[in-house]
Amino acid sequence: MEKETLRIEGFSDAVFAIAVTLLVLDLHVPEKDAIKNGSDLLVYIENQWPAFLAFILSFFSIFIMWVNHHKIFKQIYSRNSAIMFANGLILFLVSAVSYPTALLARYFDGEASSVVVALYTWIFVFINLAYNLLWFLASRDKKLLRPGITDAAIRKIHNNYLYGLPIYVIALIFSFWIPIVSLMIILGLWIFWALSSGKIEMSMKE
Amino acid sequence: MEKETLRIEGFSDAVFAIAVTLLVLDLHVPEKDAIKNGSDLLVYIENQWPAFLAFILSFFSIFIMWVNHHKIFKQIYSRNSAIMFANGLILFLVSAVSYPTALLARYFDGEASSVVVALYTWIFVFINLAYNLLWFLASRDKKLLRPGITDAAIRKIHNNYLYGLPIYVIALIFSFWIPIVSLMIILGLWIFWALSSGKIEMSMKE
Amino acid sequence: MEKETLRIEGFSDAVFAIAVTLLVLDLHVPEKDAIKNGSDLLVYIENQWPAFLAFILSFFSIFIMWVNHHKIFKQIYSRNSAIMFANGLILFLVSAVSYPTALLARYFDGEASSVVVALYTWIFVFINLAYNLLWFLASRDKKLLRPGITDAAIRKIHNNYLYGLPIYVIALIFSFWIPIVSLMIILGLWIFWALSSGKIEMSMKE
Amino acid sequence: MEKETLRIEGFSDAVFAIAVTLLVLDLHVPEKDAIKNGSDLLVYIENQWPAFLAFILSFFSIFIMWVNHHKIFKQIYSRNSAIMFANGLILFLVSAVSYPTALLARYFDGEASSVVVALYTWIFVFINLAYNLLWFLASRDKKLLRPGITDAAIRKIHNNYLYGLPIYVIALIFSFWIPIVSLMIILGLWIFWALSSGKIEMSMKE
Repeated sequence: MEKETLRIEGFSDAVFAIAVTLLVLDLHVPEKDAIKNGSDLLVYIENQWPAFLAFILSFFSIFIMWVNHHKIFKQIYSRNSAIMFANGLILFLVSAVSYPTALLARYFDGEASSVVVALYTWIFVFINLAYNLLWFLASRDKKLLRPGITDAAIRKIHNNYLYGLPIYVIALIFSFWIPIVSLMIILGLWIFWALSSGKIEMSMKE
Repeated sequence: MEKETLRIEGFSDAVFAIAVTLLVLDLHVPEKDAIKNGSDLLVYIENQWPAFLAFILSFFSIFIMWVNHHKIFKQIYSRNSAIMFANGLILFLVSAVSYPTALLARYFDGEASSVVVALYTWIFVFINLAYNLLWFLASRDKKLLRPGITDAAIRKIHNNYLYGLPIYVIALIFSFWIPIVSLMIILGLWIFWALSSGKIEMSMKE
Repeated sequence: MEKETLRIEGFSDAVFAIAVTLLVLDLHVPEKDAIKNGSDLLVYIENQWPAFLAFILSFFSIFIMWVNHHKIFKQIYSRNSAIMFANGLILFLVSAVSYPTALLARYFDGEASSVVVALYTWIFVFINLAYNLLWFLASRDKKLLRPGITDAAIRKIHNNYLYGLPIYVIALIFSFWIPIVSLMIILGLWIFWALSSGKIEMSMKE
Repeated sequence: MEKETLRIEGFSDAVFAIAVTLLVLDLHVPEKDAIKNGSDLLVYIENQWPAFLAFILSFFSIFIMWVNHHKIFKQIYSRNSAIMFANGLILFLVSAVSYPTALLARYFDGEASSVVVALYTWIFVFINLAYNLLWFLASRDKKLLRPGITDAAIRKIHNNYLYGLPIYVIALIFSFWIPIVSLMIILGLWIFWALSSGKIEMSMKE
């Protein structure tokens, strides 16, 4: 059976690549008259640490999302309108990540800290829901999937994304209380997915 | 017969992907001294609702345009200068969408509402004309098309895009009267194309 | 013989696609307090006509450069460091086009008109030289080219780009005298290349 | 053995292409009321020479990094989580290059010169370390590499990137003393890699 999803994957890859590379535009260079010498510049850059934190967190978040997108589409062979729509929703949310990232960069270090961390967490909740939706729509009809995929593998991918949801709700609650904990939970989830998605693939090869 | 249009499709995909991902740059982050706390930030973001509306509408518009571009080029196997030019015109208009989107984002909620909705509608009229031109130039000479394509399929694609024109004229008229109706018509057309283009493809497989 | 240049072409396509799509960022949206109603907005947009002219001219210039790049690389099968360097130079200049475009957009309608048109012409002189260099380096050693390419075809491509040089010098001279004539010459050359490169390809198929 | 790394290479190519093309956004166009005539504009552009220097240096740096990335991945056939991570790190650093470039553009010509050259050198130190890490992780297990690759070829690539490290340390030391020398060392290293990587490839074909 021929894989029908190659051009969708190419287009999605391009959107992920652009979204990830545009993030650097949120690192701001100070105006020339605000800086007198090298020490001034270093102080300015040090004070920008939330921008660097947000840049790093969002870069690797989108990168791992791309890895997962790649893994899911290796199992999808045919497409229908529902899959196109769910994938479009993922791409929309991925391209939108740069907005809460910019808010986090500018306001994490101040009074609006809880609000920006909550908004930043929400975008990942939505992305998690969109990935769940994509896999639900694709796995509902085994004719769309890679021939020979086992039920165990389908369930494993399903659980892998579903488990994210309650953890994001915990991160959301923490954002109103100790915002830095929310960011650490988000980071932890991505590390978990980076490691576990590798295992899924291997188990499928058996 | 070998398909000659692969590099054109790859280039077009990249332009669509960049155009769709650059839209997020129109969501503005408030200056640091304009925001004192989280509530200020939420009020600022709420007041930006036309920017979010414009972002969502343009993202999915370009995404569905890409799907349609994909569907049309699945039927085109050879190319000539006329097809290259018509495709270049489509890419030009697609890359330009972000300008009326930015105008809509900033001025939909105010006195200039009718003007920005009219400009926003015009760009889609032009894009519709460019798609009609592309299909007219390609289908005029059946040697350029996929071997074995039926006349019924050619006519169906033709009608599908032609029907859009009178509806856009209605949207243009509404823009001077009740601008929100124009946006709803544009949204409705994209939903129609999202659903109907799937059907075209299926009917071609018969 | 296997074609070795596919990943170079893919990378080049991406740079062309991004360069062409970023041009829209030079169309500026007026600040909210500068515009009271729809008429104000239309006046603002009308006064921005040099920006639209520059956008259109540069978009189609880069688009036709891409078509020509495509045509040249269809004849190149192997690569060496010299070709990589010449191609890198082309990509550098293509990505730089947006800077003289932005200058033209902002200053064509004013005292600095001659200077911006001259700078805008210079970038195309350099791009023309880089294309000549690429084809000189590639065609010098027929082992790098498509097997079976005729000497007539090699010479035809060579002449096609070489003829551009004296015409650009004329455009440069006009820029100090009647700047609009320079832009029309640039436009005319691209139309010539758009049409003639099609003929080259056909003559090669014989 | 089938090559498993094609989609990684495609994604990486896109990130390199975007990173290289976004650099032009750091060339600033003066505000309209700051420029009265053509001479003013030329003076403004001349004073911007550090921005042009930074643009050229970073463009060709990223371009040669891409060439090297291409050469390394021609030797890698399988992938694991470690290679994915090391490649993600390279892409992160490549996308970040535009920030020290913007700092160099704005502050090379002034009091903060040493600081910006040192920061600009640091990013290349990190990129060098990331390339070393990628090749260390890939070459540690010969099952990941192209079948038939010789130990001499593996060692040659290894040494090629390792030699960069002490030279970058020298560039770093010079940045506090004569900053322009650091930039010349960086330039020299890229020229060395541009030339030597060609030789590696040839020696591997034997």
